[in-house]
This record gives sequence, structure tokens and C-alpha cells, in this order.
Amino acid sequence: MTRRELRATIARTGSIVALSDFSNFFNGGTVMAQDTQKQTGSAGQLAPAYRGENQVKPLPFNAGKLKGLSEKLILSHHQNNYTGAVNRLNQIQRQIGNLPKDAQPYQMGSLKREELIATNSMLLHEAYFGNLGGSGRADGAFAAQAKAAYGSPEAWERDFRLTGMSLGGGSGWVVSSYDPRSGGFHNWWAFDHTHSLAGGTPVLVMDMYEHSYHIDYGANAKGYIDAFFENINWQEVNGRLEAAQKSAATA
Amino acid sequence: MTRRELRATIARTGSIVALSDFSNFFNGGTVMAQDTQKQTGSAGQLAPAYRGENQVKPLPFNAGKLKGLSEKLILSHHQNNYTGAVNRLNQIQRQIGNLPKDAQPYQMGSLKREELIATNSMLLHEAYFGNLGGSGRADGAFAAQAKAAYGSPEAWERDFRLTGMSLGGGSGWVVSSYDPRSGGFHNWWAFDHTHSLAGGTPVLVMDMYEHSYHIDYGANAKGYIDAFFENINWQEVNGRLEAAQKSAATA
Amino acid sequence: MTRRELRATIARTGSIVALSDFSNFFNGGTVMAQDTQKQTGSAGQLAPAYRGENQVKPLPFNAGKLKGLSEKLILSHHQNNYTGAVNRLNQIQRQIGNLPKDAQPYQMGSLKREELIATNSMLLHEAYFGNLGGSGRADGAFAAQAKAAYGSPEAWERDFRLTGMSLGGGSGWVVSSYDPRSGGFHNWWAFDHTHSLAGGTPVLVMDMYEHSYHIDYGANAKGYIDAFFENINWQEVNGRLEAAQKSAATA
Amino acid sequence: MTRRELRATIARTGSIVALSDFSNFFNGGTVMAQDTQKQTGSAGQLAPAYRGENQVKPLPFNAGKLKGLSEKLILSHHQNNYTGAVNRLNQIQRQIGNLPKDAQPYQMGSLKREELIATNSMLLHEAYFGNLGGSGRADGAFAAQAKAAYGSPEAWERDFRLTGMSLGGGSGWVVSSYDPRSGGFHNWWAFDHTHSLAGGTPVLVMDMYEHSYHIDYGANAKGYIDAFFENINWQEVNGRLEAAQKSAATA
Repeated sequence: MTRRELRATIARTGSIVALSDFSNFFNGGTVMAQDTQKQTGSAGQLAPAYRGENQVKPLPFNAGKLKGLSEKLILSHHQNNYTGAVNRLNQIQRQIGNLPKDAQPYQMGSLKREELIATNSMLLHEAYFGNLGGSGRADGAFAAQAKAAYGSPEAWERDFRLTGMSLGGGSGWVVSSYDPRSGGFHNWWAFDHTHSLAGGTPVLVMDMYEHSYHIDYGANAKGYIDAFFENINWQEVNGRLEAAQKSAATA
Repeated sequence: MTRRELRATIARTGSIVALSDFSNFFNGGTVMAQDTQKQTGSAGQLAPAYRGENQVKPLPFNAGKLKGLSEKLILSHHQNNYTGAVNRLNQIQRQIGNLPKDAQPYQMGSLKREELIATNSMLLHEAYFGNLGGSGRADGAFAAQAKAAYGSPEAWERDFRLTGMSLGGGSGWVVSSYDPRSGGFHNWWAFDHTHSLAGGTPVLVMDMYEHSYHIDYGANAKGYIDAFFENINWQEVNGRLEAAQKSAATA
Repeated sequence: MTRRELRATIARTGSIVALSDFSNFFNGGTVMAQDTQKQTGSAGQLAPAYRGENQVKPLPFNAGKLKGLSEKLILSHHQNNYTGAVNRLNQIQRQIGNLPKDAQPYQMGSLKREELIATNSMLLHEAYFGNLGGSGRADGAFAAQAKAAYGSPEAWERDFRLTGMSLGGGSGWVVSSYDPRSGGFHNWWAFDHTHSLAGGTPVLVMDMYEHSYHIDYGANAKGYIDAFFENINWQEVNGRLEAAQKSAATA
Repeated sequence: MTRRELRATIARTGSIVALSDFSNFFNGGTVMAQDTQKQTGSAGQLAPAYRGENQVKPLPFNAGKLKGLSEKLILSHHQNNYTGAVNRLNQIQRQIGNLPKDAQPYQMGSLKREELIATNSMLLHEAYFGNLGGSGRADGAFAAQAKAAYGSPEAWERDFRLTGMSLGGGSGWVVSSYDPRSGGFHNWWAFDHTHSLAGGTPVLVMDMYEHSYHIDYGANAKGYIDAFFENINWQEVNGRLEAAQKSAATA
């Protein structure tokens, strides 16, 4: 989807978020005035780790076709929260690259934290949108693992949903990760973007930040979780799990 | 406002959150079955610190009369997020009181963290609702302190707003606190409920959790902050600051 | 204590931390080269909120006279951790004051977080050192409140100690705070410097960062907590509580 | 190393941590009395995800042979912090498995957070001990990636060290992770065990919790980081990186 198409879609669907409101907040660095430019810098002579060249990935499904999650919600989520994170990440990486040689440790630490927040926001949002757009019930590799680890897919789902409910009214993620150490998978709680299983591969990802549902569901986190389950792309989820299992076998 | 009135108001305003959806999530402990009852317990023979007898305070203003913040948003915020925190806090305190004598340290630590989250959510929400319902610009004691600390009320406001914008798309609070050590006041960032100036007295409190604005503003955090400033009850804010100054002088 | 005296004391006690090792890490801004100077700036024309003029308070007791906590440990704690936090805070505040007019929100947010960490580290360390240097058991106002809230001073102590043990091997604080809302007091968990009861007044403060005990006790957190209790200055603690009660009555 | 050998070694090296002091704190569940047993339960009929059957891995090198890191420090670190985390994890998983059917969401959330803390502590400690015991400078695959991402191994090392120094006096990890999205690697900041790159594979891991160095270095974090670099097992590190690259190519 081009920027122009997105703009048109938002106009058509009456999104309450005008892109222009956020041109300063979420810009990619282009409208910054001279002073900030000095701090966050340009990618020019920086090493790749500091160039901030992460690209936004488009939605992998038609935003108007999910069940119980409105086009307005999904487009706002993708444009403001996900795209905002990618653009911010690029600025942060360049600012780290432009730190003075004698920077104080806290200057590095505070920016590295922002980098982790923005990076995981980018990665988890991509995994989240990537596992939406489908329907049906868990099957295949995922259902097999859910049974192996939790006794039954229903028991797995109870664990996953209750973890999600514990994040209602706040922020966070619920992530089923494949863990190469145990060779199995497990549901993990994340209170904010920075929390993640070390070395785990996210297989199924549910966003519990309130921006994932408040436009449609208000405080009704349970209603949102129900809708999330209606739209899981199990083919994608099974593919991730199988790739992780295959990789672990290779390593 | 009675529960019945609230229900009626919600029905009238078309709130998308049905109370019944949350009777389990946010109940005050009354519908818990026997097993949970054993863990979270009743207040019966517990010491006061563990009785969980915190009471919900009603909104101190007419929810339908704010500028730019809808009655639906305010009622949902008060009923689901604030009231939910108070009820949850009471359960947590009783569960701590009912920990076995030989509880493992992590059992205490994990519940103490939940207690701090729920307690600060209660206290900050009360301070937040308490400093809404007014209008106009900062004056009196607050304007004087803002000028003394930041050079001008405008400079104070820039600092406060930019801190708020940094929390857009996530969670947290911006709090102007009176600090008895310095005898002045200062704007503080909080990423979640647990962050707070040690020993400081909150004077002006702005909620930046997405449940404070998404129903009305979607991702437009700036629009919400504008509306917040339109509704500040400066009389209340000045009263808090003067009380803190007087107390510090007494101590 | 002058810097020269401190240096002499450290030499005499065989401290393993040479001050020179930390002249860059914990300097007060004096040895920063030009580039960093540009970012963290000088206090010159900044408003008071950004001037970074916090002063280090000397230890309120003779570091060589505590029971079970060595002079080496206490001096390292005061010089490296507490003094380091004050100096870092001053740099952070000046860097915030020197942010460009068009700073991105994340730049403000990341520095405000660092400011909260350093400020609470300063305040809690001052309260911690301030409530050491005594002996005996809780008495007076504190014992009365402990009994009122927890049933008995022993029950209060169990709660306080188990919370401390939950932080062993990591970081954090245990703080008994006076809470003006309830008019009573309560033990609070803090996992890092940023966690604190909103609006509460710290009355008794125990540092659980590993730098508080590892030099003397290694991983034996329980041994450290025992030693902490041997050295509490209950006169100071009672004074804080009485001042808080009096202030609350005035407000 | 058997438990008996470990005990002997500790006695011989004069470790200041007596194992018995921690039999209650860090036990594997065996000395818990009946009440706690009810809550944390036994593994009996639980599904694998809740059985808590994680095993402690022995140190992969001779604890007495590192340069600048004492046997006492390393054994205490392995026995108290790492082993303690594994045992605590097992208790937490069983407690989650024994939650009542009608558990409140906060009960699940608070335990899932403890599970993430203990799990990442286990995994990162294993990776940390696993990449010690060697010597020399970065070479092979790692040096090649460091040059590709940061311009030179020296530039990579500056970034890694400054991130480490920002955690001095507190807690956390510095982790160089392989990231399948970018196909490269990057240095990450972690303030506590819960922070981790989503989907990344830890390649080089440095513990910055104060228990990693205070026994030997006190507050001198820089001295510890120097010692860490003297002991890196680059063969292991290169092996991890190559396995991650190979797995990514397969997936």
C-alpha cells in the first residue's frame, strides 16, 4: 500500500487520526530542524549498526476484512504505532551513532533502552500483523505442540487467554515462543515491548497494548481477545513453528 | 452515583463496555469460587494492613460536562480502570495476608509488586480525576512555582507536554510533584503506575495510559493533551501545592 | 568529610575501589570534553529546574562504627553509588535543559527516566544512610504504627524481611512509608530506584542493591538484613514518622 | 561437579556464603512445609509446561582458572544466583500449574512475570558461563560480523563496553544477538533479566548484575569488564554465531 493509498483509505473510513497530526511525532527524520538534526544525525558516514535504515512492512492482509476488528483500528495501529516505532528506531540508532566519543555511560544506556523498546515494538508488531488474517482453530504443528506442552489445545488456550487478561487495562504482549533449549514451546507474558524470552522464537503473538482494541472495544479486553482468536492465521503460525523446529535440528 | 445510575448512564451513552463483561475481571471478590477464595481469602481475622478495605471514591465532577473528553470515556475510565484497580488491590492485600508462614520470597515479592501497581493506580487516578473539572490557565501558587522552577509557565508547560508526548502510544503518567527536599516542584515521567518520586507530593497529574483517550482520540495523544489542559481544576491544584508547602514548613 | 580525607580513609581501609578508576564514570562534569559538554551543557543560563545543582550530603555517622557492615563497604556505597547518582543527576538535568527546541518526544522521555532513576537513588540513599547509625528495637511512634497496621512489631518485621529476601540476588529497596490517604503506614517493594508509593513519605528505608552487601556478605542477603536491623537509628525513624503525622494533620 | 565436590571446593576457598544459609532461600522445593506445598505443588499430574523440571547445568570450565575472576566469585555466582534461579523457576511453574480454575488474572500475570525473570536468568547465566573460560581477541565469524556491523572490532567493543558501564552500580546484561530479520548482529542493553531482543539469538553475553563482580571488584565495574574480556571463549561464541547463521539460512 502506498502512502497515498493509505491516506485515501483513512479519509474514506473516517479515521479519527489525521496523519498530519503526527507528522512531527512520527516523522522519519525529514522535518527535524537543525538542532535535532545535530543530535540524531544523518545516516551518511555511520556504520551499518547506526544507520537506522529499517523499512516499514505493509499489512499482509486487507485491513477491511478482519472479523470484529475494524479497518480504522487496524490502519491506525499499523500507521501510528508500528510505523511510528520503525521511524523512531531509525532516529534512535543514528543518535547512538552520533554520540560524542566521550559520552557518559547514562547517555548510551538511555538510548539503548529506547532502541530496544522501538526494535521489539517493530518486530512484535510485524509478527502480530503477520499472524492475523486467517480463521479457524489451531491445527497442525501448533496444535500438536500445544497438546504436548499443556495437555490439550484448550488448556493451552486458557493459559494464553488468562495471561492476556492480566494485561487488560495496561500494556504488553502475550507470546507463544519456541524455545530451543527445551525443544518445546511456552506462553510468555510481556508487560511492555522490552520483555522477551532470551533466544526464543515468537510463534504466536497477541498485542495487549490498549491501542490494539480501545477504538473498537473500549476497556473490554475479553471482547478483543475473542476477536483476536477469530482472526489467527494458523498457516503462518504453523510455518513459523516448523521453521524453528527445523532450524533447531540443524544447529 | 449509585451502581444503578451508572448502569443507566452507560446504557444511555452507548458505552461499548457492558459491566457484566467485567463482573469476573473486576469483581470485588464476591463471585470468586472456593479455590480462589482460599488464596485471596476474606478480611476476617487479618491485620489492617492486609484487610483490603480500600473504598472507591466517586467522580468529583459531572462526567458529561468536560470539554473534549466524552462522558463515555470518563465513565469507562472511572468504572473499569480506577474501580478495577481498587477492587484488585483489596484482593491482593488479602492474598498477601493469607500467604503461608513458610512462603517463598518470590511469592511475597510478586504480590508486593501487584500491590504497588494497584495502589499507585488507585492514588494517581484519584489525583487525576481530582484535578479535572475546571478550566482556565495556571494561576496562583502553581503559576508562581512554575515560573520559579522553569522560568515561565510556558516553559513549564512545554516540559510537561513533551514528557506526555513521549508516553503516547504506550502507558504512564506525567506528574508535577512538590519535593520537600528542594522546596520546589518538578515534572516527572512515569512509564507505568509504579514509577513515582520518592517522598514527593503529586500536585498535577495527567494519565497517559491509552485508556485515557483512545475511545475519543485514537492515537492522537496531542489532541488528548490539549483537552486535558482545557479541563484542569487549578483551584484544586493550587490547594494541593499550598497544603504541601504548609506541611513542609511545619515539619 | 573532604575529598582528601575520604581518599586517605579508603587508602587506610584497603578499599578495592580506587577513586581514579571512576573519575570518568562518576565525575561531576568537570572532565568532560567539548562534545559531551555541548550535550550536557553548563548550568549557566538554565532555569533552576535544569541547573543540576544538587549537593552531596556527608554520611551522618562514623563509617567505621556500624555493626556487621564494614567501613570499606559503607564508604564505597556512599562515594560510588550515592555520590555517583548525585553527580549523574546534575548532568542529566543540564542535558534536559539543553535539549533543542524541536527535540523528539523520545529524547525527553529517555532523559526523564534517567532523571527519575538518579533522583530516587539520591533521595533513597540519603534516607537509608540517615536511618543507620543506631541500635536497639523499634519503639515509640514506629512500634505503635507497626502494631496498629500489622498486629505486632514482629508481624511487621516478618513482612519487611520477606520483602527484602525477595529482592536478594537482584536490586531494589524495601520502604516503610507513611501514607496520608490512609493515615497509616505500610511496607513497599521496589525493584529498582524508580518504584515508589505515590505521595508517600519514606520512614524506614533498606537498600537491597547488591552493592549494599556483596563486599561483606556475598550472596548472603539474609546476613545483610540481620546486620541492617542491628544498626537502625530508631530515633531518626520515629522523628520522620511523627513529622509526617503532624504534617498530615496540618494539611 | 557433584554437590559434594562443590561443597568441598567452597570450604577450601573460604567462600563467604555458606550453602546452609540458603537452603531455605534457594531450595528446590524439598524443605517447604505443608502450606506452601499446597500452593507451589508437586509436579505429579501437571502438564509438562507446569512440571518445573529444569535441570542445573554444571560450570563448563574450571572455576579456579579464570583470569581476574576468583573461584569464590564464580562458585557463588553459579551456586547462588544461577542455581537459585533454576530452582525458583521450577517452583513458579508448579505454582502456575496449580492455580485454581477461577484464578484472577493478576494471579496469573504476577507469576508469569516471575517465570520470565527466572527463565531468562537461567538461560542468560548458562550463555554467560558458556562463553567464559577462553582467552584472546575476537576472531573468525564474530570479528567478521563486528566489522561488518560496527566498522571495526574496536568500534564494536567500544559500544559493548559503554553499554556495560551504563549498567554499573545496578543490574542487567549486555548481549550481542544475532537477528534473523537483518541477518546481522547488534549489541543490546538489558536492565534486568526480562529484557531481550524478540527472536534474537544471544551470541555473546556479559552479566552486569553486581553479584558478577562485587566480591572481587567492589564498585569497579570497569575492572570487571576488563577481566570479562580476558576470559571470553571465542570458539564457543563463533560456534553460536555460525549455528544461528546456518539456521537462518535453512528457515
